[in-house]
Amino acid sequence: MKIALAQINYHTGNFEYNTQQILTHVAAAKAEHADLVVFAELAITGYPARDFLEFEHFLQLSDEAIQRIAQAAEGIAVIVGAPARNLQGEGKPLFNAAYFLAEGKVQQVVAKTLLPTYDVFDEYRYFEPAFSNKLVHFKGVKIAISICEDLWNVGHHAKYKRNPLAEIGAAAADLIVNIAASPFSVGQEAERAYVLGEAVNTYGKPLLYVNHVGAQTELVFDGASTARNAAGEIVLQLPTFETAMDYVVFEAGVLAASAATNLAPVASSNIQLIHDALVLGIRDYFRKLGFKKAIIGLSGGIDSALVTVLAARALGPENVHTLLMPSRYSSDHSVNDSVALVNNLGVSYEIVSIEKVFSAYEETLRPAFAGTQPDITEENLQSRIRGMLLMAHTNKFGSILLNTSNKSELAVGYGTLYGDMCGGLSVIGDLYKTEVFALCHYINREAEVMPSNILTKPPSAELRPDQKDSDSLPDYEILDKLLFHYIEERQAPAAIRAMGYDEALVNKVMRLVNINEYKRHQTPPILRVSNKAFGMGRRLPIVARYLN
Amino acid sequence: MKIALAQINYHTGNFEYNTQQILTHVAAAKAEHADLVVFAELAITGYPARDFLEFEHFLQLSDEAIQRIAQAAEGIAVIVGAPARNLQGEGKPLFNAAYFLAEGKVQQVVAKTLLPTYDVFDEYRYFEPAFSNKLVHFKGVKIAISICEDLWNVGHHAKYKRNPLAEIGAAAADLIVNIAASPFSVGQEAERAYVLGEAVNTYGKPLLYVNHVGAQTELVFDGASTARNAAGEIVLQLPTFETAMDYVVFEAGVLAASAATNLAPVASSNIQLIHDALVLGIRDYFRKLGFKKAIIGLSGGIDSALVTVLAARALGPENVHTLLMPSRYSSDHSVNDSVALVNNLGVSYEIVSIEKVFSAYEETLRPAFAGTQPDITEENLQSRIRGMLLMAHTNKFGSILLNTSNKSELAVGYGTLYGDMCGGLSVIGDLYKTEVFALCHYINREAEVMPSNILTKPPSAELRPDQKDSDSLPDYEILDKLLFHYIEERQAPAAIRAMGYDEALVNKVMRLVNINEYKRHQTPPILRVSNKAFGMGRRLPIVARYLN
Repeated sequence: MKIALAQINYHTGNFEYNTQQILTHVAAAKAEHADLVVFAELAITGYPARDFLEFEHFLQLSDEAIQRIAQAAEGIAVIVGAPARNLQGEGKPLFNAAYFLAEGKVQQVVAKTLLPTYDVFDEYRYFEPAFSNKLVHFKGVKIAISICEDLWNVGHHAKYKRNPLAEIGAAAADLIVNIAASPFSVGQEAERAYVLGEAVNTYGKPLLYVNHVGAQTELVFDGASTARNAAGEIVLQLPTFETAMDYVVFEAGVLAASAATNLAPVASSNIQLIHDALVLGIRDYFRKLGFKKAIIGLSGGIDSALVTVLAARALGPENVHTLLMPSRYSSDHSVNDSVALVNNLGVSYEIVSIEKVFSAYEETLRPAFAGTQPDITEENLQSRIRGMLLMAHTNKFGSILLNTSNKSELAVGYGTLYGDMCGGLSVIGDLYKTEVFALCHYINREAEVMPSNILTKPPSAELRPDQKDSDSLPDYEILDKLLFHYIEERQAPAAIRAMGYDEALVNKVMRLVNINEYKRHQTPPILRVSNKAFGMGRRLPIVARYLN
Repeated sequence: MKIALAQINYHTGNFEYNTQQILTHVAAAKAEHADLVVFAELAITGYPARDFLEFEHFLQLSDEAIQRIAQAAEGIAVIVGAPARNLQGEGKPLFNAAYFLAEGKVQQVVAKTLLPTYDVFDEYRYFEPAFSNKLVHFKGVKIAISICEDLWNVGHHAKYKRNPLAEIGAAAADLIVNIAASPFSVGQEAERAYVLGEAVNTYGKPLLYVNHVGAQTELVFDGASTARNAAGEIVLQLPTFETAMDYVVFEAGVLAASAATNLAPVASSNIQLIHDALVLGIRDYFRKLGFKKAIIGLSGGIDSALVTVLAARALGPENVHTLLMPSRYSSDHSVNDSVALVNNLGVSYEIVSIEKVFSAYEETLRPAFAGTQPDITEENLQSRIRGMLLMAHTNKFGSILLNTSNKSELAVGYGTLYGDMCGGLSVIGDLYKTEVFALCHYINREAEVMPSNILTKPPSAELRPDQKDSDSLPDYEILDKLLFHYIEERQAPAAIRAMGYDEALVNKVMRLVNINEYKRHQTPPILRVSNKAFGMGRRLPIVARYLN
């Protein structure tokens, strides 16, 4: 039996596009004499479809798409993910299901048992856990179909009480199939390999794993679909961050590569994966929204420079425009370094002074501000003027502003709401400042894409004379570690202090993280590359008093 | 047996405050010779504590608070909600629990079985459903303790397969207690009464219901704690939107009012409930964040006028400042009507022209915009200048900007990101424009608090000459109904058309709702008064193609 693994870049809610993609791949697999083609979890709707799953009309479109694909399943069988109705009169109205299609119709529906409801996942919001499932019998082969999280009930305190592979009878199966919607984050690759390995080891069966590829707003799916034989050896590895389809052969209980199969090279480093995830994240955000052009405010600092490089790679330099907006506090090198960068990249730029507008604000506010001293207000104003000029460009020319905030800033609130926090998409909002540096060095590993001066000068917001980030913040080397202990690890203050950090500093940083939730509530969506990104996967109250 | 129902305004994460409140009420109930005092669901942590429930240190503080309260439970028993550890080695690490405290220690823990995970609720994100529960035996009375949603498994397609009251053995109990965290929305009161009635009718037992009161960011808890006897009659009714404690007596199987008990008057209308919810929502937002002063941009229109009235009632007029920011397109009545309003209210104001700043932006953008015509860009700029001036005031004087967007605008994207969409809290973002009018008429029911001209003139953004909302939008009477069918009811386009609406209009409105998700992603938190508010309870993808 020849089996195709189809790794596709779906578009949430775009039933016509998703169905066409699936039909095209079914036809291609059939032309290659495949017996079965496997698509990803909730491929029909895209993932995550979120509350669209509560719209009956949306579900009808999904049902119709399944029927269309079923009709094309003649001479080839199809496994594809879509919602299924719970008709049993109790529990959530839907299952997250895998459809087995053959001979022109739906032959069997397998429901997901373990519904991830943590971090960015909300599946129990929509879906009822499977009541019971059965093996699929196809051409003498017994297939245990599972859906993503169904394999993830591992570790010393398992998240779930049920074991879907045991329940479906994987011990009696010939082959395990897992269809997934598993987004990229650093470390996810290794964990996924461990989980797939556990399933193979436990049941001694070969396993096919088919994932999504492509970005849906903040989530970037890396693909990396794979097949393992019963010994756990990888016989097929699809690439990361690219669409692909390839084949395996299952004969006499043995899963093997088909003649033409290539093992895609595995990324050599986390920083390369992050780079590729962000480029795909930008590209898909624009493409799927129907936009082409980006605008970026270039400060002369490392964050905006990095975002410009990534945008030029994602969209083409001809689609990236930059504004350099010096003020009275800007250093010469801010403009010079930025010009050197955009010339390297072939990106267009304009230099626009914010002085005239700033003076007009000062004059307009003078009566109200009489008797007060300049403070953070005037710093924020400069940042906001830049935001407004950039937004005016997006309105006039139909582009999207890319936000350049990093995770360290967002964590401690070192940014101006409606100023440098503006934008349609936050590109590096899930990278700590030290990771921003690392990614820049990765980009410069062979040639000086980014002028070295941008990488070496001390970070500064340049909103008052001789300002440096280090005036208000600890060194990023220390700050980022502290933030990681609190945000990713959720460590207690005492535990962090016990690692050797200064008590006042620990308290200050934790307090800053907590009181700035209100700012993060209004940030653009952030491309997620860590296992705890700000945004949909981290939900904290604004009005609260805890460590603040 | 004398039982106290304690309806308290908790503060999320503020263990010291919450514990003190509980201890004070325990002491007061003891002084009144109560045998038992009942507090709300997750009273110790506040509700919703959201991802703080994933912080071990946060949970330790909760555990410590429970121990402190247990020690005070001498001569009186206490039922109070807090997280409990799941020590069984599988499933989520916590239960949402009711602690029964007596004789100075924790006597029994009852876990919640049905975990709401829809709309604004995320409980399965944190909690494992109860494995099993037992009746509490206290002074010869068998109490079936349940937690909020545990009673809500009703209707023709029940959300859950389990029945907590049946499992715990409510048929053998003498008394049912339900501790809740049930936020206000229009219609919730009636549904709650139905659900409580069903529990009493099914088991023929008296029931005590204790809810939170007070706002936690967007959720406003209305209190309205109550007690019903076995015949379903209300014997105690605590007030809406106010803290309170009162008593019932349970003797020989009969629940009755205690001598001193009063039935709080029930609100006479939904519009009164909405009014009271918004006033409390504003007040608690400021109080719990430690702020006193609000600022509002007064346009001369009905939305900002209404927010100013509500803010003056919530914070006191002396804590509300307004800016009137006319442009070249503002009509005279915009300023005059606003001045009349603030004089009625005793609120301070300044008139600040945006002309100088607007001209400076025009001049600064002239080179880039050469050859283009004025369009939405210039309209947005005016709105954004006003936002920036208001934000400058908040920075300089330590106030919070109140946002004045309504739900109709937010739905169709008729507002400017970083302009009139700025603010720390959206006060009327869950009121359709027609509801805004209704609330204004309610406010003016006895005296002209709001100048009638504000209520009668046609809505306009005044961003270009003679602009009216009706230039771009259908009449609000029609628009709001359409929006309700789509947002609250999630009706299909064909179903809405079948109600008699124009096809092109239906398609346009649905498309506008969907493509403006990106704007709503960056709005301030919105006080929730409907059962489908924009914000945490409505989660839709930004990058999607569905009805757009």
